[in-house]
Amino acid sequence: MDLSAAKRLLHNSPFHQFLGIQFEKYESGEVMLKIPFREELLVNPKLGIIHGGIIASLLDIAGHYAIFSVVGSKSPTINLSVDYLSPAINSDLLVHGEVIKIGSSTGVADMKLYQSEDSQKTLAMGRATYKHS
Amino acid sequence: MDLSAAKRLLHNSPFHQFLGIQFEKYESGEVMLKIPFREELLVNPKLGIIHGGIIASLLDIAGHYAIFSVVGSKSPTINLSVDYLSPAINSDLLVHGEVIKIGSSTGVADMKLYQSEDSQKTLAMGRATYKHS
Amino acid sequence: MDLSAAKRLLHNSPFHQFLGIQFEKYESGEVMLKIPFREELLVNPKLGIIHGGIIASLLDIAGHYAIFSVVGSKSPTINLSVDYLSPAINSDLLVHGEVIKIGSSTGVADMKLYQSEDSQKTLAMGRATYKHS
Amino acid sequence: MDLSAAKRLLHNSPFHQFLGIQFEKYESGEVMLKIPFREELLVNPKLGIIHGGIIASLLDIAGHYAIFSVVGSKSPTINLSVDYLSPAINSDLLVHGEVIKIGSSTGVADMKLYQSEDSQKTLAMGRATYKHS
Repeated sequence: MDLSAAKRLLHNSPFHQFLGIQFEKYESGEVMLKIPFREELLVNPKLGIIHGGIIASLLDIAGHYAIFSVVGSKSPTINLSVDYLSPAINSDLLVHGEVIKIGSSTGVADMKLYQSEDSQKTLAMGRATYKHS
Repeated sequence: MDLSAAKRLLHNSPFHQFLGIQFEKYESGEVMLKIPFREELLVNPKLGIIHGGIIASLLDIAGHYAIFSVVGSKSPTINLSVDYLSPAINSDLLVHGEVIKIGSSTGVADMKLYQSEDSQKTLAMGRATYKHS
Repeated sequence: MDLSAAKRLLHNSPFHQFLGIQFEKYESGEVMLKIPFREELLVNPKLGIIHGGIIASLLDIAGHYAIFSVVGSKSPTINLSVDYLSPAINSDLLVHGEVIKIGSSTGVADMKLYQSEDSQKTLAMGRATYKHS
Repeated sequence: MDLSAAKRLLHNSPFHQFLGIQFEKYESGEVMLKIPFREELLVNPKLGIIHGGIIASLLDIAGHYAIFSVVGSKSPTINLSVDYLSPAINSDLLVHGEVIKIGSSTGVADMKLYQSEDSQKTLAMGRATYKHS
């Protein structure tokens, strides 16, 4: 649950830097990340639709940090599933990750993605299993 | 199965441009994409490990183009699952997508990711359902 | 949201009859099913562990009835994912299904499974997409 | 890869007995199971459609035995995903399971389901991660 270790992980990752991830919340078993809008996240610039791969990435990262906040070490993703509910459009994003289970060698997290101006409407849901040491 | 329409989709998407996606193969129901290595794809620059979110993105995109090659119109992802088998390290990537089923309103694709120098060793597998019109 | 139509579906299915499914709750978008314990549900009779396939079946059925309660017609499963958290042991079961989204041709549901004496502890989670007409 | 141990597991499980599972093939990393048709497997007796929960169960079991054939010990399912492609109708079933990866504490398997008279047409696909000791 060491925020400075989590921030080091963020800063060391070029893709996390590209995404511009910031911690809005970092507690044991639960994180909220904020991602500022940028043009490169789009699949469709005319409609302003953010790419599904960006959304999958953010869900995976939020789940990873939720697990990291409990186990304190890097926890590679074993598998990830994403359900897309509504497009995310021209907006800063919030991603919530929470730990569902920490087992002896794996952990499970649930994740949700929102536009930052409406954290009631879930735009995408993720679920993932991470390996930990 | 219109390659020029597929290339327009690629070129219009800022995130696809960031990823530098090229078509190695584009046939009806089957595509192979090539992605040149770049530093920004990494989660861990010391070990050269490419980010799992990048891998999820590429699998999703390969499945999408496989479906697009058959149905000829944009096909948003309904859901996506990814299994990570081995890390992709400091390398150009290949992603294969193939159509498993085209139903009346949805289609299913299977995807695999490789390092470009070894297209025998699957590093990650994806499966996704797309909505089509 | 017609409970008598839902009960007809239950009674017509030999596998639902085998499972002994009863409705504890049947509202628009949300159902709770109860399944009485029986020996044939077990994978391991010495430890009393209920089979993972039974659990997957119950999660799928609860999601289906949640969708059915809204759309009012049979809704075949497109895909289903199940995460197993803890074994279900020698016990009646409760399965909760709730609608997350109803789209134009597909719907998404979330499901959870409990032992009937402890509906706080989630033993397994499911998520599924159903096709509807 | 001990077939007699695998058969003991089968015979000890009341649900496996209900399903009537037989080994058609049992090699290291690959199994084929045969399941004789019976009325209780149906969701819709008028159309002869076999229940999706039965299909999920069989896919899970085939993946489990594929992993078991390599690791030689019980391997509980961590998670399972199933894609349904076409209904299985009034028929004996074949289920194929093969190991994709055996890691230090988890393994991944791919599974496919067929009607026994047509092992070319995949009716459902499964992918699962199992924990092993």
